[in-house]
Amino acid sequence: MIIVLKPEITPEEQAHLIQRIEEMGFKIHLSRGEHRTIVGVIGDEEALRSTALEAFSGVEKVVPILKPYKLASREFRHENTVIDVRGVKIGGPKLVVIAGPCSIESRESLLQVAKVVKDSGATMLRGGAFKPRTSPYSFQGLGEEGLKYLREASEIFDLPVVTEVMDPRQVPIVERYADVLQIGARNMQNYSLLSEVGRTRKPVFLKRGMSATVKDLLLSAEYVLSAGNRQVILCERGVKGFEDSVRNLLDLSAVPNLRGLTHLPIAVDPSHATGRVDLVAPLARAAVVVGADAIMLEVHTSPEKALSDGAQALRPEALRRLMREIAVLEQSMDVVRKIESEGAFA
Amino acid sequence: MIIVLKPEITPEEQAHLIQRIEEMGFKIHLSRGEHRTIVGVIGDEEALRSTALEAFSGVEKVVPILKPYKLASREFRHENTVIDVRGVKIGGPKLVVIAGPCSIESRESLLQVAKVVKDSGATMLRGGAFKPRTSPYSFQGLGEEGLKYLREASEIFDLPVVTEVMDPRQVPIVERYADVLQIGARNMQNYSLLSEVGRTRKPVFLKRGMSATVKDLLLSAEYVLSAGNRQVILCERGVKGFEDSVRNLLDLSAVPNLRGLTHLPIAVDPSHATGRVDLVAPLARAAVVVGADAIMLEVHTSPEKALSDGAQALRPEALRRLMREIAVLEQSMDVVRKIESEGAFA
Amino acid sequence: MIIVLKPEITPEEQAHLIQRIEEMGFKIHLSRGEHRTIVGVIGDEEALRSTALEAFSGVEKVVPILKPYKLASREFRHENTVIDVRGVKIGGPKLVVIAGPCSIESRESLLQVAKVVKDSGATMLRGGAFKPRTSPYSFQGLGEEGLKYLREASEIFDLPVVTEVMDPRQVPIVERYADVLQIGARNMQNYSLLSEVGRTRKPVFLKRGMSATVKDLLLSAEYVLSAGNRQVILCERGVKGFEDSVRNLLDLSAVPNLRGLTHLPIAVDPSHATGRVDLVAPLARAAVVVGADAIMLEVHTSPEKALSDGAQALRPEALRRLMREIAVLEQSMDVVRKIESEGAFA
Amino acid sequence: MIIVLKPEITPEEQAHLIQRIEEMGFKIHLSRGEHRTIVGVIGDEEALRSTALEAFSGVEKVVPILKPYKLASREFRHENTVIDVRGVKIGGPKLVVIAGPCSIESRESLLQVAKVVKDSGATMLRGGAFKPRTSPYSFQGLGEEGLKYLREASEIFDLPVVTEVMDPRQVPIVERYADVLQIGARNMQNYSLLSEVGRTRKPVFLKRGMSATVKDLLLSAEYVLSAGNRQVILCERGVKGFEDSVRNLLDLSAVPNLRGLTHLPIAVDPSHATGRVDLVAPLARAAVVVGADAIMLEVHTSPEKALSDGAQALRPEALRRLMREIAVLEQSMDVVRKIESEGAFA
Repeated sequence: MIIVLKPEITPEEQAHLIQRIEEMGFKIHLSRGEHRTIVGVIGDEEALRSTALEAFSGVEKVVPILKPYKLASREFRHENTVIDVRGVKIGGPKLVVIAGPCSIESRESLLQVAKVVKDSGATMLRGGAFKPRTSPYSFQGLGEEGLKYLREASEIFDLPVVTEVMDPRQVPIVERYADVLQIGARNMQNYSLLSEVGRTRKPVFLKRGMSATVKDLLLSAEYVLSAGNRQVILCERGVKGFEDSVRNLLDLSAVPNLRGLTHLPIAVDPSHATGRVDLVAPLARAAVVVGADAIMLEVHTSPEKALSDGAQALRPEALRRLMREIAVLEQSMDVVRKIESEGAFA
Repeated sequence: MIIVLKPEITPEEQAHLIQRIEEMGFKIHLSRGEHRTIVGVIGDEEALRSTALEAFSGVEKVVPILKPYKLASREFRHENTVIDVRGVKIGGPKLVVIAGPCSIESRESLLQVAKVVKDSGATMLRGGAFKPRTSPYSFQGLGEEGLKYLREASEIFDLPVVTEVMDPRQVPIVERYADVLQIGARNMQNYSLLSEVGRTRKPVFLKRGMSATVKDLLLSAEYVLSAGNRQVILCERGVKGFEDSVRNLLDLSAVPNLRGLTHLPIAVDPSHATGRVDLVAPLARAAVVVGADAIMLEVHTSPEKALSDGAQALRPEALRRLMREIAVLEQSMDVVRKIESEGAFA
Repeated sequence: MIIVLKPEITPEEQAHLIQRIEEMGFKIHLSRGEHRTIVGVIGDEEALRSTALEAFSGVEKVVPILKPYKLASREFRHENTVIDVRGVKIGGPKLVVIAGPCSIESRESLLQVAKVVKDSGATMLRGGAFKPRTSPYSFQGLGEEGLKYLREASEIFDLPVVTEVMDPRQVPIVERYADVLQIGARNMQNYSLLSEVGRTRKPVFLKRGMSATVKDLLLSAEYVLSAGNRQVILCERGVKGFEDSVRNLLDLSAVPNLRGLTHLPIAVDPSHATGRVDLVAPLARAAVVVGADAIMLEVHTSPEKALSDGAQALRPEALRRLMREIAVLEQSMDVVRKIESEGAFA
Repeated sequence: MIIVLKPEITPEEQAHLIQRIEEMGFKIHLSRGEHRTIVGVIGDEEALRSTALEAFSGVEKVVPILKPYKLASREFRHENTVIDVRGVKIGGPKLVVIAGPCSIESRESLLQVAKVVKDSGATMLRGGAFKPRTSPYSFQGLGEEGLKYLREASEIFDLPVVTEVMDPRQVPIVERYADVLQIGARNMQNYSLLSEVGRTRKPVFLKRGMSATVKDLLLSAEYVLSAGNRQVILCERGVKGFEDSVRNLLDLSAVPNLRGLTHLPIAVDPSHATGRVDLVAPLARAAVVVGADAIMLEVHTSPEKALSDGAQALRPEALRRLMREIAVLEQSMDVVRKIESEGAFA
């Protein structure tokens, strides 16, 4: 940690600051420049982080040097983490496509969509039984009944399933039926929930909050990891922006940005990001070539009857077309990775 | 609800759309302009909201006419709601100042701060026992032990207390010790938690999420209200922005904006908004004259030793000065309100 | 245009509003719902736009129906505009790559980079002679001298050149040397400059402002188009966001979003968007498959000696690798477009 | 400047970096911590700023220590700058209220409004003759004719006038008629224009850009100051945000934030920030007590007939009420300043 002192700091203020830091067991390294004096603090930065060094008189700014997350960082683990979900490997060389309806609406409609998903070539099924809805008057999901339908669809079509859990008290139930536990964007900083899914042994699909930085997302992953669950998939799904013609702003730079910082697999959800079906296919394609490990898509057999988010759901024929496009781009990405690796050894 | 049709919509598409809306029990009112045809839909807009009208071919955009919240709206209740917290009235003619430490760190330090708060003239005490921290390695609060100290401080100094609840399972414990249940910004869309505090009879202090619009905040209040708890205090505490010299952007326009839309009391927290103690007093003053019902402030007897958010905590003497400034401005606001009321009858 | 009336509007207020609109030559279409009365206004919406209908008592909100731009809209011109820059066609079936240094620093260094650009297979050269720099103390560009070097490099390597113009008074000079006139993000709403380049016959490369919506960008294009210059290339280059590990947030959804709204060609600049060289290649690839017509890249032979924006400049070998990747993805896009066109006829 | 090295930097990379910095004439101060090595660079930071130190292999991050602006900084000039505009002092102990129409629409309407402004007690008149409008089809202002009316109104009512200049070529004309030259938010980074007004001797009223940080604003001021004009008034007028019920987000924290960083006077424009007349008075009051030196307000005698921005214009009686409120709050601020000064000497 580096502390920049104000030019007008008094000798007493400076002595007081240094004394306090040394009392906490840190070593000090003073460096006097032309305009500012800088204090390098040597020791466990974490211990210092919660101390309000900015609250000392004479301190101009405090610059942390280390990253505040550990288990999630690439320094902690150099190779990419691959998560095996009943044979589907997320984070490995093959892109995983997760598709399904926003909400589970009925047994029939779910089985219909699951068949479409399976036939299209996607390898995981999504569907919400507990829905976080902005309005208390909107459809809130079928609850455990929905989870049963999801399990049934999973068995019939041999598709591992991912579904959202919203409440620490629901974790045992959702864990019973789901293969992957999803934490929604609105709950990315629901730390009780993160700790609770951290105590399970099911992989966690963690969506980035709408106003979370990449660092915030990794700190939320750290909650799960530090509770003992090392299987976390990060998901970019759009952040809050000022553009009023899309719901959120899909931050595709987050994929290569995260790739450098973490060993965890990275997914992209273009459906929730934009809320507009006409933008889903182009952005799904972009997610493939920007290097995502998984893509999550919403599909509905008749979007205009959907109980939630119909405006962003792909129709079956659109999903089939998109899956063919993704297959073509995946092949290109094999070539791209070869070209990139030449650079790495150059 | 109004539906704007694309100019290229076919007669079949238009007939299909209209048929579907009429099947759902709505009346249709067609209006053909020079460039666009517009469909007015008459009936309970709420029922239509979850239908993906944008998913119909030929629909250009859908414009809702009514507000999506009811119980929180000023149309539902015209007079301001006044919430009585053990004699302290929030939403009435007198501004309420809530002050205290970010976290409860020990019995002694809490009692010290509580005395400072009481002596300064503030009328409620704040302090966190369960702390939502971005990093799992930061101090997470003293838990129930902290709540006991808070209760004790409340009794000794006759100050009602507000404290955060982060988990639906903690609601019964927190309810036992606290006078007001705070929902933090990160949990504003934690709907399980909102419903749970909605089932208590304790007032709820609901902080605006960092990327929540004013409408989102009112919809979150609606969760609490519709669960049966009619005592909700809304709190502006800064939204996410691009300015990198402050933590968040305090949106003071939200106060008069909300005032027009809702009957619920409105508070402002300038400490968390900025994260900088030098900005707290000016923004607290601004909150008074923009018309807030309550102001929440962080105080610490030695900010540089605080276990959380020390950089934004007022020292005791700064709190005392600010309370004197607030008193002066409150008197001015009596005159301002008189002048404004001339306008209302003009 | 649709006007939603407040429920408490008085008959006098309503009559006054309607009378005023009718006086302006518009027809009125009243539609009374259960909760709100809606006024449809029929006639030239543009004429009404500048009238402050919200300023009338009793008006709750005003909803425009038509888009505020015309010449830029796909309704005005259905087929894509293809712009021919000395034989390089932007907006046609082939992706155009524009590469070069941020600033022109010397004759030698420019010729060096131009050779790298040519050899890599890119087909246009960029380079700034007039630089808009945040600080008045930063290198401001070589001015006309730089333009001469640019022209020379253009002739030697047979590469059309694009360069920024910042001031209406510079337009004649820049026009003399450049093939395409670039308007930078900071000048996207510099209307004098837009009108001035609109009077030239050189294509205009218009960068989206950092806080401009897609609609704002099209309105700025409309300034150029309505001044008589029909050759405008729109460029997404990142918008302002809260993420602090990248300079701006590249909004790739803008490409398909704009594609639906306008016939103008669309470019993407991943270098300025992120400010980080490690993110440029992945986002350039994403730009190809999201459907961009052109990509603008910064290249430098020794980025650590660059006088501006070195941190985002590709080294020559990185450009060569990226050009090979782009070539692979372009081939895939031919297949993708075929698949998409099946959908369009389905 | 501080450079943090990556843990995996090679000795050769480190030697290369240090050699290059020393070649540029800087001294180096190495500091080895447990996890990172840090390079302190001693010398003129400005010279180093444009070098892309991040482009060196092995560099993790670069942390500037000094502020990039000089003449605008409080370190350069400790006492507040007071600007005298024909006897009206901006930046002194008395708050200045600048009021007038958004655009000058006709001689008659301007004289009417000017009379209202004068009678209300405001001391400066605003009004636009050259209008930056998002759409090329909106009213663009009366040009020089408008400036003549403005000058006439100024003389008749003895009110100094401020008006916008949008184009470097207009500076001589606008300078002839106006007392203060306004740079609009859209032109805050129009550096040609900033340099041009920097060469005049008229005070400059510089509005903060919609996506400009406080530091960006000060760097734009630096353009004017370094061109020789030391009379710059900074104006907060709302920044881009995601809230869709107001036009922009008024950042009142910018006032005390700027106060600490600069000696220049600070103004607030609550009319443009919100675009809603119902929010103007509360935010104008907030601006007074947050410590603004000046407030800019839009007034119109019949807002529903305004040719621009009618929705945010105060009616004459509302301006008169607000001026009375401001007077009351100014008196309170005298007391507040006394209380604050006790703190400064404590």
